[in-house]
Amino acid sequence: MNYKGKRWRTIWRNDDPKGSIGVIDQRFLPHEFETLTLRTMEECAEAIRNMTVRGAPLIGATAAYGLCLALRDDPGDASLASAYRRLHETRPTAINLKWALDQIATAVKQLPAAKRLEAAYARAAELCDEDVAVCEAIGRHGLKIFREVLAKKPSGSKLNVLTHCNAGWLACVDWGTALAPIFMAHDAGLPVHVWVDETRPRNQGASLTAWELNQHGVPHTVVVDNAGGHLMQHGLVDLVIVGTDRTTARGDVCNKIGTYLKALAAHDNGVPFYVALPSSTIDWAVQDGLKEIPIEERSAAEVTHLRGKTASGELAEIQVTPDGTPACNYGFDVTPARLVTALITEKGVCAASGEGLRELFGK
Amino acid sequence: MNYKGKRWRTIWRNDDPKGSIGVIDQRFLPHEFETLTLRTMEECAEAIRNMTVRGAPLIGATAAYGLCLALRDDPGDASLASAYRRLHETRPTAINLKWALDQIATAVKQLPAAKRLEAAYARAAELCDEDVAVCEAIGRHGLKIFREVLAKKPSGSKLNVLTHCNAGWLACVDWGTALAPIFMAHDAGLPVHVWVDETRPRNQGASLTAWELNQHGVPHTVVVDNAGGHLMQHGLVDLVIVGTDRTTARGDVCNKIGTYLKALAAHDNGVPFYVALPSSTIDWAVQDGLKEIPIEERSAAEVTHLRGKTASGELAEIQVTPDGTPACNYGFDVTPARLVTALITEKGVCAASGEGLRELFGK
Repeated sequence: MNYKGKRWRTIWRNDDPKGSIGVIDQRFLPHEFETLTLRTMEECAEAIRNMTVRGAPLIGATAAYGLCLALRDDPGDASLASAYRRLHETRPTAINLKWALDQIATAVKQLPAAKRLEAAYARAAELCDEDVAVCEAIGRHGLKIFREVLAKKPSGSKLNVLTHCNAGWLACVDWGTALAPIFMAHDAGLPVHVWVDETRPRNQGASLTAWELNQHGVPHTVVVDNAGGHLMQHGLVDLVIVGTDRTTARGDVCNKIGTYLKALAAHDNGVPFYVALPSSTIDWAVQDGLKEIPIEERSAAEVTHLRGKTASGELAEIQVTPDGTPACNYGFDVTPARLVTALITEKGVCAASGEGLRELFGK
Repeated sequence: MNYKGKRWRTIWRNDDPKGSIGVIDQRFLPHEFETLTLRTMEECAEAIRNMTVRGAPLIGATAAYGLCLALRDDPGDASLASAYRRLHETRPTAINLKWALDQIATAVKQLPAAKRLEAAYARAAELCDEDVAVCEAIGRHGLKIFREVLAKKPSGSKLNVLTHCNAGWLACVDWGTALAPIFMAHDAGLPVHVWVDETRPRNQGASLTAWELNQHGVPHTVVVDNAGGHLMQHGLVDLVIVGTDRTTARGDVCNKIGTYLKALAAHDNGVPFYVALPSSTIDWAVQDGLKEIPIEERSAAEVTHLRGKTASGELAEIQVTPDGTPACNYGFDVTPARLVTALITEKGVCAASGEGLRELFGK
């Protein structure tokens, strides 16, 4: 996407002999736009762990390049296996991480050591290009739905879309999943307005989604995560669209904590609830998302402390709770398939059910 | 309640010839415990408006004393009417405000001007004492429910209670509504643990409820507002209890924004959802809470900016959204009666329905 007149992706290979990787450092957005060079597998792992990069597809791309950097240092089987393990353990919930690691491992496993590095970089670059194409396809399928929903409203109405967390281009390589149809709708002249859940504790909505929409000129309003139910009760939301970190074979959706609450409110108010996803987030081995998906627990400090910009323009961290107050921080929740109106994938749209998914993907 | 060994109420009449009012300034908690002297009706109105004091019962008590201060300056009918209007317009949602103003107005209306001031102060003091007694009664009725819920769990289990916002003693004159049974359960030796919703945008959970529980020694954990659904899905919540700013004659409950989302999650997971309220929050003139209760919209700055304590111990404000990002800020939402397990009042417990309320209150 465009930032200050330049076309950006969230991740790229630098043109240096060491094959280092460049990423946008998302920890400083929306206040500062900074990039970071990842020079080793360990730096890639740390960038995933500390959320320099985040979003299921981008985590996958970063892990893929992390394997490349490990193979650069040592192309042997033991190095491959150990780097795979290290990268895999950085975040437990998003399934793209494993998927992307498997893609690289499969591409190099049968090759002699001397040919592995080149093949790994080639496959990682392909994965990134594929992710862009996949998100673009998701955008096109989503746009069709947006048009249908808008067509049912009185002429001249706005299309009010609510989204949670950030499933935009910053979560992917480009375009985004849930935000792709929003960008396309805006570009196509649809009068789209986005309610942006701030998405505590890390505020990816207030910081990243708002920043993306701002850059792209899409009308939007940030609300606290508590507000969505009220908006839906009062007819102010026409559809909800979110991303997912893992989708089960029966259509349960594991996404940022709080997604389930919005799905309940959508269901209670007859508002359609869509989930946009590349098929790489489908975990065909898992049925019951609630019982089977490990939910990451992150640091309590993400709840008790917040970072932002002071009046003088500096970044500062503040504590909101009393000294020593215990907090806990589950990163994701699971929205049962029964609450999901449809899944929007690169292959098209299907019901959030085993049958819907199997039919769409020919399984 | 106790703070540093001294017994406090949230509001009191100072022992000075001007009859000024003292309150705990809740804008600086949990980081600083400060009190503020309110010397005029206008200062009382401003304290309500800027949330120096908040919580439906305490808003009522502050408004009552505000009328006293107006009558001190001018005991005439015009002064009374104008102060009533000014205080009434400070916050639109909580019905206790109007109720408390009516109590004072009724007490003085038939009196000659010379006798009004004394009668007003006397009635305001009575209202405060009554509020304490009412909250204590709510606590006793709630404690009975807590015992019943705990009795159904395996011996040795904790009783996990989730609450939203602050319906503790800081929201009232003493004890609190939703927190009263929690304090009593803890004092009675029940193994109660409280999940505290941080309650964005103003974080009354993270700042005030956590502070109260901390002071009283009640085990608790702060979570983001997004987390409650996940906790309930995993059996980590035995009951939800919240306060209310206005309860309709058919049992709809208007409370802090986000309450409705927790009620949906409780309903979806078979977790009982209780609302604790003094009968002064019942608006017998309103049936449909969604259609009839005005919902306060507050400043967008409460969403985009947060206040807390820096590492060096100073209070600071930070901005979390990009510069110029629009935000909106509805203060309350309405939980339909169908999602409420029961109402806990000073008169006892009843179904959240017209019939339940009429029977309990003999209407």
